[in-house]
Amino acid sequence: MTYTDLSEQILRKQSYLCVGLDTDLRKLPHHLLTEPDPVFAFNKAIIDATADFAVSYKPNIAFYEAQGPRGWESLQRTLEYIPADCFTIADAKRGDIGNTSGLYARTFFEPQAAGLNFDSITVAPYMGRDSVMPFLDYEGKWVILLALTSNPGSADFQRLVTTSQLDGGMAGGGGDYMSENVAMDQLYQTVIKTAQTWAGPDRMMFVVGATQTSELSRIRELAPDHFLLVPGVGAQGGSLAEVSRRGLTKAGGLLVNASRSILYASDGLDFAAQARTEAQTLQKEMALYLAERV
Amino acid sequence: MTYTDLSEQILRKQSYLCVGLDTDLRKLPHHLLTEPDPVFAFNKAIIDATADFAVSYKPNIAFYEAQGPRGWESLQRTLEYIPADCFTIADAKRGDIGNTSGLYARTFFEPQAAGLNFDSITVAPYMGRDSVMPFLDYEGKWVILLALTSNPGSADFQRLVTTSQLDGGMAGGGGDYMSENVAMDQLYQTVIKTAQTWAGPDRMMFVVGATQTSELSRIRELAPDHFLLVPGVGAQGGSLAEVSRRGLTKAGGLLVNASRSILYASDGLDFAAQARTEAQTLQKEMALYLAERV
Repeated sequence: MTYTDLSEQILRKQSYLCVGLDTDLRKLPHHLLTEPDPVFAFNKAIIDATADFAVSYKPNIAFYEAQGPRGWESLQRTLEYIPADCFTIADAKRGDIGNTSGLYARTFFEPQAAGLNFDSITVAPYMGRDSVMPFLDYEGKWVILLALTSNPGSADFQRLVTTSQLDGGMAGGGGDYMSENVAMDQLYQTVIKTAQTWAGPDRMMFVVGATQTSELSRIRELAPDHFLLVPGVGAQGGSLAEVSRRGLTKAGGLLVNASRSILYASDGLDFAAQARTEAQTLQKEMALYLAERV
Repeated sequence: MTYTDLSEQILRKQSYLCVGLDTDLRKLPHHLLTEPDPVFAFNKAIIDATADFAVSYKPNIAFYEAQGPRGWESLQRTLEYIPADCFTIADAKRGDIGNTSGLYARTFFEPQAAGLNFDSITVAPYMGRDSVMPFLDYEGKWVILLALTSNPGSADFQRLVTTSQLDGGMAGGGGDYMSENVAMDQLYQTVIKTAQTWAGPDRMMFVVGATQTSELSRIRELAPDHFLLVPGVGAQGGSLAEVSRRGLTKAGGLLVNASRSILYASDGLDFAAQARTEAQTLQKEMALYLAERV
């Protein structure tokens, strides 16, 4: 899917909602457990219920892997079922040396490999450029790079102050660190800057947790046109209003993910109807923010 | 497997060889392709041929995932076949928010989840403490954290100079960065230091690429007792001699991985015999370095 396609869909549906398919077999409504593939039966009902209000679906791969081979079959069926106009995200957080990243790219992007054909994949940046590029070798596919995540551990490394000047300086007293031509950024900012030399906004997005609103304006400065995938609204406590005010662009520029609040809105026979209501509530709120933005 | 068990096995076998099972269907000897599970047939032959000389096996999960559901079945069969005295590593480079990392931990550590029971898993540190701890909740299981990897992209972020002092200082001219109580490290060094507050050498190892020998002595200072998992000898150009001289400890302290040089020593009927020869050559060299060390 192209940047323009995604942007147009957002304006048409008046929504930038991504539904996270973190489908946990242990949380499914009991009446589904007798289905031949309960995870797919659940996902199918959720997709049917929410597709009017969502522009993207994001299966969290951990939930499928934890079921072994049959989990991969549920994932294949789910991905095939997602409407073609919705942007699909493999939330896999992969990243390895080049030939291994290349295999992960095959897995998620080449249908004849593992039966999957996602539009995009989330990737961890720690291993650098050659761990990311193999995903970009697939024309039309996207990398969604972790930048500033929503969890408490994001403070451990992502927010460390870094300098790109590696040699010299400190042993002699650190004077170089005061000169103006040394870049001082938090690690996640360096990630955002560096990754823009690998691909443009038409092929790359960044993950920014909804709990990190204080940083969102700075991130928008660094990456004015990139889509941001924003998890953490709802169960994790992020504010949709704050995220939207700081993150929306003319093209949309946001995919805000909600998982548990939609999937598990009810654990009864009405789970799909309740999921629909929840998704519609978010969409209506998003329509307001889209209108405010213009 | 405990630290002591692993150390004793190294001294008994006079080897710290880890065989990386990066089994690529496209590279298998042709005569195996008629087997019901060619990947497992290959791995079984490689394990039989090398178990006298190896203390550890490391399936690279990307290679199995790229086959879809049947790849997971090959992985299950392979893991069950690895001798019980060998240390098993899921080279998966996972890492996500807590509840998702918890599911990855279930996948690789709980046999009743996905049919896998690895001793350890490789984890990317970018998301910090709460992305790593769920793996350590499994008693007796190990985390092998990426520190300084073997690929060119390791320079992009891992070697950035970081300071743990986030606020204050720079805006006012950077004077704080010269004071002695501010830690200035490369990111990978900060990762090694920080991660030691999460678990001791009995539960955590670090990945250090064999191409990074100039940093190995510094890493040994930072983590004198931790095992280091060292990929990159052979195809990637790292030197076993250099790695061993700088990395070995009294307890062993190294797992040096070789993948392609062993797996694809021959693509003919003699592939297992050639793999055995290659593994034995590495083991003999390792025995010399173990002797030198004392």
